[in-house]
Amino acid sequence: MSFSYKRTANYYETDQMGVVHHSNHIRYFEEARIAFMNSIGCNVREMEDNGIIIPNVDAYARYLSPIRFGDEIEVIVRLTKFNGAVMEYSYEILRKDGETAATGHTLHCFVDRDFKPMALKKKHPQYYERTKPQVEKTE
Amino acid sequence: MSFSYKRTANYYETDQMGVVHHSNHIRYFEEARIAFMNSIGCNVREMEDNGIIIPNVDAYARYLSPIRFGDEIEVIVRLTKFNGAVMEYSYEILRKDGETAATGHTLHCFVDRDFKPMALKKKHPQYYERTKPQVEKTE
Amino acid sequence: MSFSYKRTANYYETDQMGVVHHSNHIRYFEEARIAFMNSIGCNVREMEDNGIIIPNVDAYARYLSPIRFGDEIEVIVRLTKFNGAVMEYSYEILRKDGETAATGHTLHCFVDRDFKPMALKKKHPQYYERTKPQVEKTE
Amino acid sequence: MSFSYKRTANYYETDQMGVVHHSNHIRYFEEARIAFMNSIGCNVREMEDNGIIIPNVDAYARYLSPIRFGDEIEVIVRLTKFNGAVMEYSYEILRKDGETAATGHTLHCFVDRDFKPMALKKKHPQYYERTKPQVEKTE
Repeated sequence: MSFSYKRTANYYETDQMGVVHHSNHIRYFEEARIAFMNSIGCNVREMEDNGIIIPNVDAYARYLSPIRFGDEIEVIVRLTKFNGAVMEYSYEILRKDGETAATGHTLHCFVDRDFKPMALKKKHPQYYERTKPQVEKTE
Repeated sequence: MSFSYKRTANYYETDQMGVVHHSNHIRYFEEARIAFMNSIGCNVREMEDNGIIIPNVDAYARYLSPIRFGDEIEVIVRLTKFNGAVMEYSYEILRKDGETAATGHTLHCFVDRDFKPMALKKKHPQYYERTKPQVEKTE
Repeated sequence: MSFSYKRTANYYETDQMGVVHHSNHIRYFEEARIAFMNSIGCNVREMEDNGIIIPNVDAYARYLSPIRFGDEIEVIVRLTKFNGAVMEYSYEILRKDGETAATGHTLHCFVDRDFKPMALKKKHPQYYERTKPQVEKTE
Repeated sequence: MSFSYKRTANYYETDQMGVVHHSNHIRYFEEARIAFMNSIGCNVREMEDNGIIIPNVDAYARYLSPIRFGDEIEVIVRLTKFNGAVMEYSYEILRKDGETAATGHTLHCFVDRDFKPMALKKKHPQYYERTKPQVEKTE
């Protein structure tokens, strides 16, 4: 199982190569990941309001075919690892013609407002409980 | 008198028109304005650390000739109005060939962390005193 | 009559003020304008493929209330002027709570791939004919 | 040996976490890589004008400590692989306090304007000859 997030590539996301600049794929990953989290009851805005900050530990993208202005794209998100301390996602960006535009993955941790590590299971068990079962489901 | 800020246009700032996307000129204005404020003893990072937030009230840009990737540009900043409640700037972006790429202006106010208006003169007179004389100088 | 474009504010569009950075409103205007043009049979990607480039002559935004990450916004677009040489739009960004977040306007011209002015009515009458009646409708 | 590129983190590059958004590190890598290429006689703008397009095949960033608005950063660039078909770089972003903010790497290929693979050695030997010796030097 996996989560699907759709959007259209914007004009201002292209560069003079005539295709979406490669840094924007990292932003598409973020949009899709946040949409997924919101969908399982882990509203990211609400979590931040509760002092749970979720920075990136790393980010990787592999570019397979270009995305052009106006292309409708679908980002397939999978939660591949989660233990309350770190959370790992994989992504696949599909174009409407079925072509894979990019794949990638990101690793995240949980910190408080001072960027100190936070044990999500202990501090906010509700978010832990909602996220944990998704690892299996989205693999 | 006026303040000059220099930088080079980045690849990722272009769009598929082959020139810098028009939203980035607004960001160049911000870079130049912050460099100017830092130069007169109003360090923007330090001001924010002291709870002084300086949002835009408006922003205007007029695009006269395109900026291309690699172009060395100069932003001329002028403080055109300041009374401790609002602060207005005008900008001119020059290319190395002497051509004016864009002109513009922005208006700003001072608020606290809850976006409540702040009387800069009363609350933080040092920043008021450093900024006030610049209106005349940069006109 | 007017055209409505909806989207949600992304995390990466915020800045450390905790709200959407003011340069992004200019990008929201562009998204909405392109969606409007596509809706009246002036597909912007197709127009560019046909050698019609539509740069900004100017852009203005007035910021009335902040947009936060996750806010659902609606951009109301109106075509306020069009004569085949220039095209002017006005915008209003509404938050879901009914508050106006920003207003603005942009002016555009039509050029060929070498940035030479183009007479749209003569060169591409179909796009002229589709756009012209919208001035009245969206005022 | 390695190449050093310096710049200051901009306000608009931060997000509501109060630090530079992780997608911007990918842009910093690009700025530094282009500055390096320009420095060895492979001017990227000139190369594009000659029909040599250099897209990313992949991009990776590992985030070790946050970059804040106003931080002066240094990007250390190393050319780790080059054979005329692909080109690989590694990066380290250092803060002024000596802390490593991020590390990363990118892989690139050479294509023509239609995104068809290009043999740089055969088609543009001057750029090949200038780049090749840098692999050893920057390792």
